[in-house]
Amino acid sequence: MSDVVSDVEFREARAADVPAIVAMLADDPLGAAREAPETPGPYLAAFERIAGDPNQRLVVVERDGRVIGTPQLTIIPGLSRQGASRALIEAVRVHADERGSGLGSRLITWAIDEARREGCRMVQLTSDASRTDAHRFYSRLGFTASHVGFKLALG
Amino acid sequence: MSDVVSDVEFREARAADVPAIVAMLADDPLGAAREAPETPGPYLAAFERIAGDPNQRLVVVERDGRVIGTPQLTIIPGLSRQGASRALIEAVRVHADERGSGLGSRLITWAIDEARREGCRMVQLTSDASRTDAHRFYSRLGFTASHVGFKLALG
Repeated sequence: MSDVVSDVEFREARAADVPAIVAMLADDPLGAAREAPETPGPYLAAFERIAGDPNQRLVVVERDGRVIGTPQLTIIPGLSRQGASRALIEAVRVHADERGSGLGSRLITWAIDEARREGCRMVQLTSDASRTDAHRFYSRLGFTASHVGFKLALG
Repeated sequence: MSDVVSDVEFREARAADVPAIVAMLADDPLGAAREAPETPGPYLAAFERIAGDPNQRLVVVERDGRVIGTPQLTIIPGLSRQGASRALIEAVRVHADERGSGLGSRLITWAIDEARREGCRMVQLTSDASRTDAHRFYSRLGFTASHVGFKLALG
């Protein structure tokens, strides 16, 4: 899978992309406290679990050979809504140098199109309640803030 | 997989359970408008997609041979949070005759325990903003309403 949208390319992530993806996950007010890029082992093990699951799409956006963005898409079959599959978007990041360039919109638009190609009838994501800029961004892209997202960390 | 918790049994759903699950999905203020139990084909096709995905657990709760509840659990590997897998809970329903019996708590507690057995470090779900009773219920079970849940229906 590889899509070229003007000057950027969307492609399936490879193991060699993991450090660049993790650097983007860590370069974020919330991510900084949660990530440990200096300890790559658990990230590479997680990459193998993702790569081994045909319903996962871990994608990178590349320009001139440099990784500048990432989303992860999970295709979830289900019975509700007349047997509709849904796509969950997680771990959306845009490189700090590229913020405000419209890349975020292209990234989410790409994910929506991919969900449609996979036959999904719903795209969903959650955004931390503190990320009010992100909420406006998703509303502009057509999403409805219809749900409350609950999380429980397991010790 | 089959767990007996006092008088109820949690087990993997079979194709023969689909009508009972769909009846519970439809017997709900939001589900009534979304489901079509009289047209079983799409539900059975969706069941096959679920059964073919090793990261899905579509589960029924049974008492005396009668299906009285259901959750669907999806195990999602990911890079963020140091390569943590998370479990998503969707399509939680308790039969109308069993509401207020504590079955909902047992069902979610079971799902949390199952997520832990699968090595997940996070359990997450979204609940429609109109379901305020459900929000109190999830908060009592230890979940934090930390996120906004965005949905986009694909035409």
